[in-house]
Amino acid sequence: MSMDLTFLGTASCYPMPNRGVSCIVLKSDRQCWMFDCGEGSQTQVMKSSIKAAKINKIFITHLHGDHLFGLQGFLCTLSQNMPEQTSQETSQNPSVEIYGPLGLRRYLRTCLELSRSPISFSYIVHELEPVEEQLPQDWEEWHPEHTSSGLLHPGEGEGRTIRRDETGAWHLFEDSRFVVKAGAIYHRVPCFGFIIQEKTLPGKLDAAKLKELGVPPGPLYSRIKQGETVTLDNGQVIDPKDVVGPSRPGRKVVILGDTHDPSPLTSLAQGADVLVHEATLENNMRAKALEVGHSTPEMAATFAKTIGAKSLILTHFSQRYRPLGATLEKGEESVSKLQEEAEAVFGPGDVIAAQDLQTVHVQQPNC
Amino acid sequence: MSMDLTFLGTASCYPMPNRGVSCIVLKSDRQCWMFDCGEGSQTQVMKSSIKAAKINKIFITHLHGDHLFGLQGFLCTLSQNMPEQTSQETSQNPSVEIYGPLGLRRYLRTCLELSRSPISFSYIVHELEPVEEQLPQDWEEWHPEHTSSGLLHPGEGEGRTIRRDETGAWHLFEDSRFVVKAGAIYHRVPCFGFIIQEKTLPGKLDAAKLKELGVPPGPLYSRIKQGETVTLDNGQVIDPKDVVGPSRPGRKVVILGDTHDPSPLTSLAQGADVLVHEATLENNMRAKALEVGHSTPEMAATFAKTIGAKSLILTHFSQRYRPLGATLEKGEESVSKLQEEAEAVFGPGDVIAAQDLQTVHVQQPNC
Ligand SMILES: [Zn+2]
Ligand SMILES: [Zn+2]
Ligand SMILES: [Zn+2]
Ligand SMILES: [Zn+2]
Repeated sequence: MSMDLTFLGTASCYPMPNRGVSCIVLKSDRQCWMFDCGEGSQTQVMKSSIKAAKINKIFITHLHGDHLFGLQGFLCTLSQNMPEQTSQETSQNPSVEIYGPLGLRRYLRTCLELSRSPISFSYIVHELEPVEEQLPQDWEEWHPEHTSSGLLHPGEGEGRTIRRDETGAWHLFEDSRFVVKAGAIYHRVPCFGFIIQEKTLPGKLDAAKLKELGVPPGPLYSRIKQGETVTLDNGQVIDPKDVVGPSRPGRKVVILGDTHDPSPLTSLAQGADVLVHEATLENNMRAKALEVGHSTPEMAATFAKTIGAKSLILTHFSQRYRPLGATLEKGEESVSKLQEEAEAVFGPGDVIAAQDLQTVHVQQPNC
Repeated sequence: MSMDLTFLGTASCYPMPNRGVSCIVLKSDRQCWMFDCGEGSQTQVMKSSIKAAKINKIFITHLHGDHLFGLQGFLCTLSQNMPEQTSQETSQNPSVEIYGPLGLRRYLRTCLELSRSPISFSYIVHELEPVEEQLPQDWEEWHPEHTSSGLLHPGEGEGRTIRRDETGAWHLFEDSRFVVKAGAIYHRVPCFGFIIQEKTLPGKLDAAKLKELGVPPGPLYSRIKQGETVTLDNGQVIDPKDVVGPSRPGRKVVILGDTHDPSPLTSLAQGADVLVHEATLENNMRAKALEVGHSTPEMAATFAKTIGAKSLILTHFSQRYRPLGATLEKGEESVSKLQEEAEAVFGPGDVIAAQDLQTVHVQQPNC
């Protein structure tokens, strides 16, 4: 089954006419999930081949504007293009589930209510409660109310508050194909990385051999595929090992928000097939990067090596770096510099500097 | 002195890659004022010749997303490009004053605080308190808190609450060149139109004649220009009528928010040199337009005639109308249809259907 990551915005800080801010879509067969939604993400979706109405989960890494300010507009536009649900359907079957840090529910509710924006589908905001170590030093200098009060928005369902569990993860959900968790990473504000773990895929049935052994097609096939030893009517015993190929490990995609230190996520992210890591500024601006809570390519590549990632995708580039392929004016630098700096640590070939609207195929592991 | 209106977004509802949502900039010598700030307005500014840092006043007609959702991002980006002020400078000299309906202060404060966005300059939100007749029938079905509570944002100054005065206007401010007021117009939510009245410009001094009469250049010139009769040292009396040309009436620009009925603004808008009026849907969709609180070109043109406007600029077009100059696919219609429908009522030549990034020069009245 295919898994594709599409980068809708690869700039940090603010959008420009030629480059959007943070927004990534992970598409796999029936699932279409968005990670961050900076201003202008809805027009970036329109420029891509992604169907906005297919997006059924949205994950927000942190509440900085370049990851958030497009969310209310995206939902409003989505609402225009979706058939209206009855209120019973709405309450039973939320169309869009949104995961993000504490405060997200209040942000969205305030935006949608003050703009009196009806939402034609149901949405739910599940909030991740940050832990003490994620709070910046100046946390108490600002006084926003983070918890949402008052009534739900007419389109809103009651969300969960998700706390860190004993394994150090925020367990978001599990469905038949994926387990999705979040983990803390350090930034100027509470920030998360998301770990999307595909479940182990059962091996393929050897249809020719089953026929040869006289197994009638039907329910027995799926019992065998699930690993069950079955006895045929003629007494013959079928061992799944003989007719099912090796199970295939699921893929692991790790998408980080902004960070100057993702070390709390080290064990959760271990062995990622793809690591998406920010690389805002070049290596010789490391001090500046740390000051504002960001990473250099070297830092990103080092973390990728630490977790044994198979490939590394860089994004969230400062606007000082022009997109790949842009004509450079004198004195300008391009994102390729950041890619080269990461390759110097991680090795060439397995580093991608993402471009707006680029789709990267997440490979099935070879085994 | 020049006065230019630049249309940064001319679409209604939501932005598309080829067309932004509501945002207009009025530029006149030292003043640069923005009217509405839908999502993506900051990138539209970047595409234009307008310098974002020059914008010192922002007017929001109403809190619908297509007029509002770009505001917090615009301020954040502006903040990155402005030198930091000392807190004393900040409190004495607000860099950006924002005017809009009650609820705007809470919207902005919530967005900026939850995203923990510092603003390097000072800003002030002045709220216009709507009157009963502006409230829609479903006003009580929604329960947003409109008044802002809690502490000011670190960059925020204390704003005024502006109420309708006995003339039926919300008096926003007056400076040496302009008087700016707002008036109620009817829409699905409380909505305003803005009336920018340039003050009468004194006539030009006839320098040759002054020299001939022996008036020494200096302070006397400006006293005469202000209309004062002066007596020279030699006893000669100078009557301003003889040396000052006729005073020139100031221009009047009226910019309306969304509306299906701007009649409460009729007397305030009287004699506008330029009327900017929405025309969301074509004439034969009048019922649909009224249902959603919008106007057809005929409605816009009729109002323009009612107030004796000299010219009419249409904007806020449904995305069903492709921009002027776009290649039309079969069955598609363009904004030119809306222009023609307005011309049929208002007369040809004085109707413009605005295009994104178009600048319209506001003419000095001929007299
Ligand atoms: Zn960021
Ligand atoms: Zn950030
Ligand atoms: Zn509108
Ligand atoms: Zn509106």
